[in-house]
Amino acid sequence: MTGTLTIAGLGPGSETLITPEVSAALASATDIFGYAPYVARVAPRDGLTLHPSDNREEIKRATDALRLTAEGRQVVVVSSGDPGVFAMASAVFEALEASPQWPDLSIRVLPGVTAMLAAAARIGAPLGHDFCAINLSDNLKSWATIERRLRLAAEADFAIAIYNPRSASRPDGFARALEILKDAGCGERLAIFARAISTPGETIETVALRDARPEMADMKTLVIVGNSATRRVGRWIYAPRHAS
Amino acid sequence: MTGTLTIAGLGPGSETLITPEVSAALASATDIFGYAPYVARVAPRDGLTLHPSDNREEIKRATDALRLTAEGRQVVVVSSGDPGVFAMASAVFEALEASPQWPDLSIRVLPGVTAMLAAAARIGAPLGHDFCAINLSDNLKSWATIERRLRLAAEADFAIAIYNPRSASRPDGFARALEILKDAGCGERLAIFARAISTPGETIETVALRDARPEMADMKTLVIVGNSATRRVGRWIYAPRHAS
Repeated sequence: MTGTLTIAGLGPGSETLITPEVSAALASATDIFGYAPYVARVAPRDGLTLHPSDNREEIKRATDALRLTAEGRQVVVVSSGDPGVFAMASAVFEALEASPQWPDLSIRVLPGVTAMLAAAARIGAPLGHDFCAINLSDNLKSWATIERRLRLAAEADFAIAIYNPRSASRPDGFARALEILKDAGCGERLAIFARAISTPGETIETVALRDARPEMADMKTLVIVGNSATRRVGRWIYAPRHAS
Repeated sequence: MTGTLTIAGLGPGSETLITPEVSAALASATDIFGYAPYVARVAPRDGLTLHPSDNREEIKRATDALRLTAEGRQVVVVSSGDPGVFAMASAVFEALEASPQWPDLSIRVLPGVTAMLAAAARIGAPLGHDFCAINLSDNLKSWATIERRLRLAAEADFAIAIYNPRSASRPDGFARALEILKDAGCGERLAIFARAISTPGETIETVALRDARPEMADMKTLVIVGNSATRRVGRWIYAPRHAS
């Protein structure tokens, strides 16, 4: 049998946010690869081998998935959210480029609801005008690059979705990011802290950015900083469609 | 019966990309509002009233939906893709703010797979590193704002997803956007033209930005301009996870 590799997004957490296309891929898989907490979202069954792995093992995980695909397995690599947004798709293509022995594998990428869309929906429409998405992890890029992008995003008056704002191994970057945005004149903007959206423990909180504290974010938090026009109506936060 | 208003994203086109949450909302709706081509994606049935409307009627459509909700109907406002990305959610909250006679309506927003995620998945992972999304329509913002954001996005080395690049009523903006990006040093970057992704007529094409022609885009096209590191492997385009 010809092997296939499917790079699939499981959405932010709830089963009701998994696309039928992804559910079908999981149902016909023989092997599931991914970060252990995401693999744990796939129900075990006969004929399915789960291959959970640790964080920061993306290239080894991707290469193992490519190898099993070359051997004829029906492999699915799972990510939370969308696989193409700060997730496994780029890692698989990096591994593919480094693996010229497998030039003709059957690969497809199945999109999903990425964290910023789920967070935005829960609070209203803060991404209803032009926006950007910045991964605050400096494992794979310099802090100088992150800082430059935050300043330019503020200058462009984008709403800013911040992925991976803070983790145990990177406790300080988010505090610096908040200072950079305050320096850039964003203190009055609304900052939304959305944690574990669509799971039983979800929380969401909005404050003015000047009142945001670094400890409001952890590795399960997605932060959205509104643009200069973002406003409240009742319990909702939204970006008007108009801009000057 | 208490009315509810659900603002739902139908995804880019294929039924296999509609979340179960949205399918359930459609199944229990009494009234569907939206731009006619999107309402046409909802199957008629007894007990369901379809309210298709023209483009550029967003606030009237939203206000009509709020009114029926206040009357106790189960209303769904549909958008293509995600309702919070250049779609109906912001319009509904604008209409809500202008309608203080309805302060306590039951409203929820259901996310969907937005066009840039579907396009990125089809071609690989061009949004695998930091990126931004810019709506090129100048119906609701000045062209100067669009131009400034394009220049800053290029300077930040974001991948750039361009929504609504070109329409019959705005034939010239996209040509100007291409010139701005070339002036900003992006001529060697890869530009992806993704049209009607996940529908039977889908097409996707990648060229160097310097070779892009305005007529490669129309109102059904989503354009992604890669960042400076975006590269090919086989038939795929991806943004490496690393940056300097």
